[in-house]
Amino acid sequence: MLETRLNRLRLALQRESLDALALIAGPTLVHTAGTYFHLMERPVVLLATPGGEPPVLILPEFERSKGETSPLRPTLFTYGEDPAELAPAFEAALRHAGLAGKRIGVESLRMRFLELRLLEAAAPGATFVGADEVTTELRLTKDAVELQAMRRAVQAAEQALKATVPLLRPGMTEREVASELTLQLLRAGSESELPFAPIVASGPNSALPHGVPTDRRLQRGDFLIIDWGAAVEGYVSDLTRTLAFEPVDPELGRVHAIVLEANQAGRAAAGPGVPCAEVDRAARRVIEAAGYGPRFTHRTGHGIGMEGHEPPYIRGDNLELLTPGMTFTVEPGVYLPGHGGVRIEDNVVITSDGAETLSTLDRGLTVIG
Amino acid sequence: MLETRLNRLRLALQRESLDALALIAGPTLVHTAGTYFHLMERPVVLLATPGGEPPVLILPEFERSKGETSPLRPTLFTYGEDPAELAPAFEAALRHAGLAGKRIGVESLRMRFLELRLLEAAAPGATFVGADEVTTELRLTKDAVELQAMRRAVQAAEQALKATVPLLRPGMTEREVASELTLQLLRAGSESELPFAPIVASGPNSALPHGVPTDRRLQRGDFLIIDWGAAVEGYVSDLTRTLAFEPVDPELGRVHAIVLEANQAGRAAAGPGVPCAEVDRAARRVIEAAGYGPRFTHRTGHGIGMEGHEPPYIRGDNLELLTPGMTFTVEPGVYLPGHGGVRIEDNVVITSDGAETLSTLDRGLTVIG
Repeated sequence: MLETRLNRLRLALQRESLDALALIAGPTLVHTAGTYFHLMERPVVLLATPGGEPPVLILPEFERSKGETSPLRPTLFTYGEDPAELAPAFEAALRHAGLAGKRIGVESLRMRFLELRLLEAAAPGATFVGADEVTTELRLTKDAVELQAMRRAVQAAEQALKATVPLLRPGMTEREVASELTLQLLRAGSESELPFAPIVASGPNSALPHGVPTDRRLQRGDFLIIDWGAAVEGYVSDLTRTLAFEPVDPELGRVHAIVLEANQAGRAAAGPGVPCAEVDRAARRVIEAAGYGPRFTHRTGHGIGMEGHEPPYIRGDNLELLTPGMTFTVEPGVYLPGHGGVRIEDNVVITSDGAETLSTLDRGLTVIG
Repeated sequence: MLETRLNRLRLALQRESLDALALIAGPTLVHTAGTYFHLMERPVVLLATPGGEPPVLILPEFERSKGETSPLRPTLFTYGEDPAELAPAFEAALRHAGLAGKRIGVESLRMRFLELRLLEAAAPGATFVGADEVTTELRLTKDAVELQAMRRAVQAAEQALKATVPLLRPGMTEREVASELTLQLLRAGSESELPFAPIVASGPNSALPHGVPTDRRLQRGDFLIIDWGAAVEGYVSDLTRTLAFEPVDPELGRVHAIVLEANQAGRAAAGPGVPCAEVDRAARRVIEAAGYGPRFTHRTGHGIGMEGHEPPYIRGDNLELLTPGMTFTVEPGVYLPGHGGVRIEDNVVITSDGAETLSTLDRGLTVIG
């Protein structure tokens, strides 16, 4: 499997006229090398080239055994604890790979100043360019094994919310709800490293699309947005449901019905050959028709897989066509500042003839008495 | 408090002849601006300058309200969902701050290729340099409020291990132990976003200093390294204890006693005015004298605070002097490849006349029958 992935990577480098791809610790390195490294102050860099030679791996000496057991059998360049050993290790590695003056791709959202400057210094005259199209392509469509992990991540998330909802009552803080939900995620089989800490936003806080749980206590009349996910075998889920405490706020109740219709319209529009933009438009049209267009302040969704946010992005200006195996969220929302908000988020996979929603949890408004 | 921090930042910029500091989402931005942003594919950049003008904050339009409520009252530059809006927002922001041709500091371990290239394009002729000395200084010594959060993070971690140890028995997998410990961390009051997923490494896996929990089942005769931490109010703890299953492996039992003595020696050596190197040497001397020097393959410790790994680094070549309020780990270890390992890690704060160990959990070898 890793050999196949490496060959696809090499073909993509040839097509993009790149002489190498430089990956630092992160999901694409795991996907490519089959070995996990922490992202830390000590750099780990994998250099893959378009030819048949083994990849080069730069890593701390004390992690050498991890490099040696990587199924890719990379050529290792290690450095000790003295920071002065860093630059020589990078120089030896890039000289070995013959990268001076060459064109080297990097992940824009991963590559750090630290590694970039070390690579630049070690490969005089080289040009570094964002190669997100290459790394995106490697991970964009999921195979059966990957989808199986994603299904399990969705199931774990759903099971966790089901176990949490019966415990909700006025007086609990948002933080307490988030802790309880995290605990239930682990119980349901999520990996300890969650894709993201659950968002629990109540009352006026629910009008903040990315609110962090606070010490605010849940109150009667609140709307409550819960945005959470699980991780299984390195793949994640990302769901949102909105609940209400009695008495149900009349305007937010209406907004919930509108957002639910938008969520359904977005998912119904998805299928192979459909532009990402069309999914966004289908969801947005419903909210605009109801007069809340300006309150739907974000895109309709984002890709999901090894990361919580990855391509494809479900935006009105993204004309990329959906293809089977692509996985993404559909998550329209409406936010009334100072008042409250509603978001309903599901995870979808494109199939050969349509789209399958991985998440089955009830989307209706759960009202807590 | 934030005004004081901003003033210290401005003074540090003046001293380092920097015309600005560019921070992306992360702990230093929280420490400086008092507002938390997720690190995501949409860039958030705070630009602080040495003069008296308000900082500049570049952020997505949908997070505008978070920018508006920041106590620093930054000047906001926002962009919408269309990626074409990114470059103009950066250009307007850097023009406003007058940064073309100037010298701009960044965090080497944070700044990404994405934001760096946007900043470079928006400030023609500007030079970007690693300014870790500036950001380090801002967060290096902890005030009473920060220390209180760290104490609570240590207490939560200790309570979690105490609740987990009675459940350990042969046949459990490393992953199961890690999940149980995570659950207990949340129960003990840790934030949902742990500083790192617990490391649980058993038997031969305990010889890998950064092993990831696997499906290996705990067995009689195993040594078991548990490295875990909690987060409270944005501050973290990071502890390690080594346990053994009967019958206790004789060599590893001796190694445990040696590592414990090294841990004590390292902590005893710490105090104001002492070079970081001396703490490393004090711990390492014990292990070298016992003949295991080559098996202590990493530095003795690292700073800890808002991040799990931060300065000061407790390395044999670090002549930096410890000062009151600095917080760091002391974590000597010995690893016998294919056999097993031992590490004992505590969290220490430098006081006016010595060092206080924040962690009080028993360091002796816990043996499970």
